Amino acid sequence: MIADDHRRALVALLGPDNVLWEDGDRVSYESGARFDRGRAALILRPRDTQTVSAAVSYCVKHDIAIVAQGGNTGVVSGSTPDDTGEQVVLSLDRLTQRFELDRENRSLRVDAGFLLSDVNGRLAKHGLQFPIDLGADPRLGGMLSTNTGGSRFLRYGDVRQNVLGITAVLADENGTVLDLMSGLRKNNTGVDWKHIFIGTVGAFGIITECELNLEPLPLQVATALLVPRDGAAVMRLLAAMERQLGSYLSAFEGMSGNAIDAALVHVPSLRNPFSNGETAPYAILAEVSRDWPIREGEQSLDLVLETVLAEIWGSDDAPLADAFVGPPQELWALRHALSEGVKASGRLVGFDLSFRRGDVIRFCDHMKETLPERYPGIRICDFGHICDGGVHFNLVLPAETTFDAAAEQALRAYVYGTAVESFGGSFSAEHGIGRKNQAFYDRYTSDHRRALADGLKQLTSPARLGTVRFGSA
Amino acid sequence: MIADDHRRALVALLGPDNVLWEDGDRVSYESGARFDRGRAALILRPRDTQTVSAAVSYCVKHDIAIVAQGGNTGVVSGSTPDDTGEQVVLSLDRLTQRFELDRENRSLRVDAGFLLSDVNGRLAKHGLQFPIDLGADPRLGGMLSTNTGGSRFLRYGDVRQNVLGITAVLADENGTVLDLMSGLRKNNTGVDWKHIFIGTVGAFGIITECELNLEPLPLQVATALLVPRDGAAVMRLLAAMERQLGSYLSAFEGMSGNAIDAALVHVPSLRNPFSNGETAPYAILAEVSRDWPIREGEQSLDLVLETVLAEIWGSDDAPLADAFVGPPQELWALRHALSEGVKASGRLVGFDLSFRRGDVIRFCDHMKETLPERYPGIRICDFGHICDGGVHFNLVLPAETTFDAAAEQALRAYVYGTAVESFGGSFSAEHGIGRKNQAFYDRYTSDHRRALADGLKQLTSPARLGTVRFGSA
Repeated sequence: MIADDHRRALVALLGPDNVLWEDGDRVSYESGARFDRGRAALILRPRDTQTVSAAVSYCVKHDIAIVAQGGNTGVVSGSTPDDTGEQVVLSLDRLTQRFELDRENRSLRVDAGFLLSDVNGRLAKHGLQFPIDLGADPRLGGMLSTNTGGSRFLRYGDVRQNVLGITAVLADENGTVLDLMSGLRKNNTGVDWKHIFIGTVGAFGIITECELNLEPLPLQVATALLVPRDGAAVMRLLAAMERQLGSYLSAFEGMSGNAIDAALVHVPSLRNPFSNGETAPYAILAEVSRDWPIREGEQSLDLVLETVLAEIWGSDDAPLADAFVGPPQELWALRHALSEGVKASGRLVGFDLSFRRGDVIRFCDHMKETLPERYPGIRICDFGHICDGGVHFNLVLPAETTFDAAAEQALRAYVYGTAVESFGGSFSAEHGIGRKNQAFYDRYTSDHRRALADGLKQLTSPARLGTVRFGSA
Repeated sequence: MIADDHRRALVALLGPDNVLWEDGDRVSYESGARFDRGRAALILRPRDTQTVSAAVSYCVKHDIAIVAQGGNTGVVSGSTPDDTGEQVVLSLDRLTQRFELDRENRSLRVDAGFLLSDVNGRLAKHGLQFPIDLGADPRLGGMLSTNTGGSRFLRYGDVRQNVLGITAVLADENGTVLDLMSGLRKNNTGVDWKHIFIGTVGAFGIITECELNLEPLPLQVATALLVPRDGAAVMRLLAAMERQLGSYLSAFEGMSGNAIDAALVHVPSLRNPFSNGETAPYAILAEVSRDWPIREGEQSLDLVLETVLAEIWGSDDAPLADAFVGPPQELWALRHALSEGVKASGRLVGFDLSFRRGDVIRFCDHMKETLPERYPGIRICDFGHICDGGVHFNLVLPAETTFDAAAEQALRAYVYGTAVESFGGSFSAEHGIGRKNQAFYDRYTSDHRRALADGLKQLTSPARLGTVRFGSA
């Protein structure tokens, strides 16, 4: 734990309401979203950038390690303290003062502590959104520091593509405030430094404010559940839909039958969307959407989607085995329940992988052939974003399986090894890096890149910050 | 000039066909697109990454300065040698071997020497494009190193948003090849290093290969020339079109009457698009496009555009004074001729500025009030990308004006000062940094950011590379 004089000094800097140290107050900041439990020395809850700077400066001068934390929804231990009880958690949860909408610029300058749901709730009445669609509800700072993608990447890109500017506090003796704030979309005046803070999980600085690009809310939406004829048909189906729907297509989410079944069992409010009641081995949630008001003489989107599906159905060697046009709310409720359902259905070992788009299904097929012989009883409950190559590759072992940490690491090594070495994929598509996958970062990152990270760390935040070691030491 | 033994050694490394030194052979590599003339020691034209590496290594070991050059279409002296005759130009123009289309992934792995027109020419038969629309025809390496934006940023973003991976050669003794190649769209496994090479004009490494995101070609396009009622109406017009056309809207380009007149005078093949023959003081080229085939029962885009314009026309306090729906080829020919027309119409001093979207017109209006009294006879021939805040702010002085280098710097200082300090804008929206605007980079970049750039330079390419000094020394 932390010395009393440090605690008193930090209370003096932040105010007594903004520092927590009692066991009961700390606990929600010490536990991650998935199997994650550490112990914090203190929880700091600064309300503005200047106070973040003062707190960081104090900690650096006294060699106190800091872990920045947003909504604490991450699943790789990127924002929770380790079990030493020596790390201070710097939570962004009170950084919620500034919220400045610039409608002409279609942008929002905002403190990094806002929840995604709050941001989009406030923007809805203006017909605007920050267009990152996630199952979880993180805070903006956490979203930027992990560069989350989500389900509508196809249409809007990831967080990185929708950030115009940031303010970051560096872990040096001054708690330097680095002003990279900008409301500009085109600005090529040297190194675009914000990109070294986006996706690097708070290792090089703490993002305290940002300016976000906003997009119009969709005004028409239609969805369908599609059953591809077989694995090889999935990419042909995507190609046909991209060709015939162009930028209408806003999501193309793959869901294994195992994941759907897990959700249907464990989330009883869901309705089985297959009209015959039988879950298909694999299904696609396809969404089309338009962000303009429907006009007289224009076909409804449901009709457009039905027409296109009928055309695909009627084509030679049709990639479709079945299709159900259904209400968006119901189908998205199923999609967003997959994670919870899978987690509840046994001993989960989760992976967040990405590939060239054509390799997602090939990888999953390969795993279906090789995993069950190594791990009897294993269920592959994959789902994900076929259209951008991402897949949440979840493995569920029977609850009674004895599976210690070493066995889990061996399974992880096998899956990551196959994904990265045999299929040229990524071992972290959108969850970022944390203690949970540090070993695999170390394995798959070249010495040269780690040396570059060492240099960058010295340049920006030489002190102890974050849960990750991107460098070599 | 370069010592004979260095020339012989480089000829031995690259082959005699790939090194130029005669005056007549050098000249096209020494002259930029606009008022730019230097002198090169040698021109190197390597055909692959390994040869780039060998050439760079040799030059670094012998302290020979290198300037990388793509299509040499830049306008800020970012890719041409200075007048010392001591710099070697490393041209990418023969890096044109690899061209690997991955249709499933909708991506292209390609050598950096291809011209944009070649890339899009080859992709057209697949219904795909690298969606950066420019008046010039640069090579890919140059586009990445300046992060060009262009006229369809609104729909597709800039180069940075469409690059999945790169290979870069660093200016160190080994000519280190940094493999940041990736065909992945979602990949958050540490620092995304490619972003420090994109937009930094070859100062930290030479981009030799890249993998690009591709987009479907539009299959339906309609355009109109719109005359806003006054300056204040421009943003209201944009807001109305974004609200009623959503992602149909793919360009919204502002054009001053002065720029249009200059194009009509100097490019005789153009037709005056105003039906009454009188150029409006300001006009907008608006484009709507769709990337799916038109279906029975669907309205043509021309009709959609006409309907929306009629709705806007009929609204209270309508922002429109006039509108002409016209053929895309003709209107874009006018738009793309503005630069040539303006250049031909007198003594040009050009600026590539950007602002929050709402400030473009406010800035131009301010300049129209203040510039003529300081510079009698000056014509403001601005045009640009209102929808992303970019403006090519061109000033034309009467040809007979005496205007020496000091006077030009004073004018530049006034315009940049107003843009950056009074309006919070950028002094380089999409042209990047070169010798031409180095002084303004130095003026408007904080000491801290320049110190960071020093550190990054040491980490990546400590030797003499490029025409720009991003650091402090």
